[in-house]
Amino acid sequence: MPNTHDTKNNVSPSEYAKFDPSTIHQRLNTSLSRPQLNSDGSIRHFLGVEGLNKAQLQAIIAKAETFFDENGQLINRPELEGCTVMNLFFEPSTRTRTTFEVAEKRLGANVLNLDIASSSAKKGESLRDTLWNLQAMTADIFVVRHSASGAAHFMATEVTPDIAIINGGDGWHAHPTQGMLDMLTIHREAPRPFEELSVAIIGDVKHSRVARSDISALQTLGVKDIRVIAPRTLLPKGIERFGVQVYEDMNSCVRDCDVIMGLRIQNERIGSPLLASSSEYYKQYGITPERVALAKPDALIMHPGPMNRGVEIASSVADGPQSVILKQVSNGVAIRMAVLALTMEGQRAHQANRG
Amino acid sequence: MPNTHDTKNNVSPSEYAKFDPSTIHQRLNTSLSRPQLNSDGSIRHFLGVEGLNKAQLQAIIAKAETFFDENGQLINRPELEGCTVMNLFFEPSTRTRTTFEVAEKRLGANVLNLDIASSSAKKGESLRDTLWNLQAMTADIFVVRHSASGAAHFMATEVTPDIAIINGGDGWHAHPTQGMLDMLTIHREAPRPFEELSVAIIGDVKHSRVARSDISALQTLGVKDIRVIAPRTLLPKGIERFGVQVYEDMNSCVRDCDVIMGLRIQNERIGSPLLASSSEYYKQYGITPERVALAKPDALIMHPGPMNRGVEIASSVADGPQSVILKQVSNGVAIRMAVLALTMEGQRAHQANRG
Amino acid sequence: MPNTHDTKNNVSPSEYAKFDPSTIHQRLNTSLSRPQLNSDGSIRHFLGVEGLNKAQLQAIIAKAETFFDENGQLINRPELEGCTVMNLFFEPSTRTRTTFEVAEKRLGANVLNLDIASSSAKKGESLRDTLWNLQAMTADIFVVRHSASGAAHFMATEVTPDIAIINGGDGWHAHPTQGMLDMLTIHREAPRPFEELSVAIIGDVKHSRVARSDISALQTLGVKDIRVIAPRTLLPKGIERFGVQVYEDMNSCVRDCDVIMGLRIQNERIGSPLLASSSEYYKQYGITPERVALAKPDALIMHPGPMNRGVEIASSVADGPQSVILKQVSNGVAIRMAVLALTMEGQRAHQANRG
Repeated sequence: MPNTHDTKNNVSPSEYAKFDPSTIHQRLNTSLSRPQLNSDGSIRHFLGVEGLNKAQLQAIIAKAETFFDENGQLINRPELEGCTVMNLFFEPSTRTRTTFEVAEKRLGANVLNLDIASSSAKKGESLRDTLWNLQAMTADIFVVRHSASGAAHFMATEVTPDIAIINGGDGWHAHPTQGMLDMLTIHREAPRPFEELSVAIIGDVKHSRVARSDISALQTLGVKDIRVIAPRTLLPKGIERFGVQVYEDMNSCVRDCDVIMGLRIQNERIGSPLLASSSEYYKQYGITPERVALAKPDALIMHPGPMNRGVEIASSVADGPQSVILKQVSNGVAIRMAVLALTMEGQRAHQANRG
Repeated sequence: MPNTHDTKNNVSPSEYAKFDPSTIHQRLNTSLSRPQLNSDGSIRHFLGVEGLNKAQLQAIIAKAETFFDENGQLINRPELEGCTVMNLFFEPSTRTRTTFEVAEKRLGANVLNLDIASSSAKKGESLRDTLWNLQAMTADIFVVRHSASGAAHFMATEVTPDIAIINGGDGWHAHPTQGMLDMLTIHREAPRPFEELSVAIIGDVKHSRVARSDISALQTLGVKDIRVIAPRTLLPKGIERFGVQVYEDMNSCVRDCDVIMGLRIQNERIGSPLLASSSEYYKQYGITPERVALAKPDALIMHPGPMNRGVEIASSVADGPQSVILKQVSNGVAIRMAVLALTMEGQRAHQANRG
Repeated sequence: MPNTHDTKNNVSPSEYAKFDPSTIHQRLNTSLSRPQLNSDGSIRHFLGVEGLNKAQLQAIIAKAETFFDENGQLINRPELEGCTVMNLFFEPSTRTRTTFEVAEKRLGANVLNLDIASSSAKKGESLRDTLWNLQAMTADIFVVRHSASGAAHFMATEVTPDIAIINGGDGWHAHPTQGMLDMLTIHREAPRPFEELSVAIIGDVKHSRVARSDISALQTLGVKDIRVIAPRTLLPKGIERFGVQVYEDMNSCVRDCDVIMGLRIQNERIGSPLLASSSEYYKQYGITPERVALAKPDALIMHPGPMNRGVEIASSVADGPQSVILKQVSNGVAIRMAVLALTMEGQRAHQANRG
């Protein structure tokens, strides 16, 4: 096994000991496609939906659909037999970790869960050394969850490029497997193709990893009418430039929509000045039966979870016939199986070229 | 995958956010057999021994015996290959979790360990939503350990009935796999059939999950002479109505017995007024060599563990030739393999009917 | 399954409740080969390199090499299919646990990770009972990490001799798999055979498990020139009697060496009086480019990790062309696969004899 770090690339320990979001953003390539794809167009790392084109997103969706049988039940296929996947969770997320773990085991992988932050910090080792060590333990794929935006990209380009990196959510930047499971859900459940859909996204777009990944993927897949509504404090500045329509009135926002996506109010992230009380929020932005009635009769109700019932959404809507919220979860397993399988194909090609 | 919660069944989040033992007891069906069995009599959920008849308990014992080879060594058989089992531990129990995990892996299952309590609580999600999400991640079996009596039953009947639920111990109510491993141990080790046995149960019956499951299973399997002894404060009121004989004197209790079962004094559960000092307890209720000598010469010594040596039992008895305490542990793996395999058969039938 | 503890061997609970290093040292057989080997010379337990002869160490190295393909990539081989391995970590060590877990899964074992210390302590159960219970759950191999010297040996000889025990590091006594991965690395990377090598070991030999295992293995494999340097406070008294040369001057120590091994300064273990400041340490003992230039041009640079860059070693040396530090990590997986596979062979022979 050749050394995976070369001497040209030396940086001082203090420089790389911490993933500093500001430095990382400077390093972030404006084009995300380069590190994500092998020269033949196959997936090398899965960092974000931004660098992928329509055909590539469709290929992921198509791959995910192969993991359902004719009854809509998920099946196992040992496409990662003999492969070692390490789930590196720098911040806890039971839900995301569990879905990945189910997906990895359904594919027959050897799975290791590592709580990196606490273990490496204790011994005073730099993060870079920790990751190099894990790589040297012969992992094939790292699934990375990190609170700093760009962490997965930084690992893929500068720390451990010889390991396939899958972004399991980083900072406020991206949560691309969540974005893709939403696309899979719309593809499977909506009665019209992406090009004809109106999608309303409601809530804390500013602090939502999912919203960014969703908007980008919807646009790539051809959705022209993307509507956004939230208290001004929860919308990123200049969001209009992303090609979405900002609404002030909830009723207008959901009217004739095909898809209503609620976003989680992330209590833990938001200081009190940003947000009115939860009852006030529900009054203005809650997804209620009355508002759902304004959308198309077959509109889908989506939410990435965990839900705050009675705040973002009425319980009767969340559990109602138009809700596909639990289907999103099942589709999340299928999408992660697809991303893992496609990334492993790219990893095998990469290993063969280095071999 | 159809939604597993229906809209008729809406309760407010506050109602189901906590498993309140008192509400649960109200909901508890007096007959436990209904939720536990499919219409063809196969096992649907494994919640307690109470709802199962003699033939059904014997079938579990017989299944467990198929997992031993001719030398008495446990064997593997991939009866859960491709199945996903989630161990949901709402309270910690390394011993029970480890035995289940060994059993699941010997059956070839994909195993996920989840510390539910801490993870779902953190995000303020209701327990019901957490369980629905785990179900939607395509689990086949939940093994549930919970401090509230009836929690497993509540999940099986009201929250996630489409997942096979195995009760890994709930409140003071039941610990049915422990009860069944005791039955397997007696079946394999005792020189006489259940109908001819005298069984003495010594200690904290009141707070023991195991004692309840044991008494019920022994009676179903035909044991007529069940003796119980403990300080009055550690016996449930009206225990005589369960068909057991309460003894005041330890020597009389164990005399001519075929099986002596010690129960763990659960220090953490018992306030000081309930229990004399541990040396006093040992003097009155300790399983000593002298008392063992009063029982039948081939009497079995049992204890569910962990033991307080020198309190409930003398070390020389625990480690002596009549002790089957470590065999109970090995039999615990076999019984859990049996319950998992039988429950998975029922789950497959259920899934086929829904498919 | 026969009882694994016999009545002749009864000790009072207080005696065995704690692994007391002083008692254990008294019990330690001067010859470690007896408990480690079956009568046919095959490996029964893997406790330390001390009891093994040259042919036995070479056999482990040779076995490890079978797990590399022609491109130097690690391969999987299901030699532990159906076996149950329990990783018993009485003190945390993410790095060692992860390497073992990768190795075990590459061999197809059923793997359970157990944090024994915290779980058994909570219920007041003696350690001996905990281990007997885990044994009765039908484990084949225990991998043991413990802070007390001799803990693995004590378990192998007195607590659970029917389970194969692998020492994953105990106290200041031994870390034999780390020692063997160093031997594998030297064997694969050094241009000369062991008999012709000069090896310099730099740093905290006194508190290093690895140093003891390394020195013993190097001598067994025929290395004649072993040099040691450190502040006097970090060298064990009478180290010269182990057949190593103690140096006072770093430049003389590394001159014409074939292998330079840095040891980790274990900050957490060392009180301030023992050690000068880290900058002073680097000045006197740091592995710098200038000092590396004094060694043979093809000298290997080794470090067991985690490194304190700029204290024990310059970053440019750690990441330079002569460094085999990350190869040590990969070789660590191969060595652990070898030790697990060989120990399991011995375990199968033992089980067959008992059967």
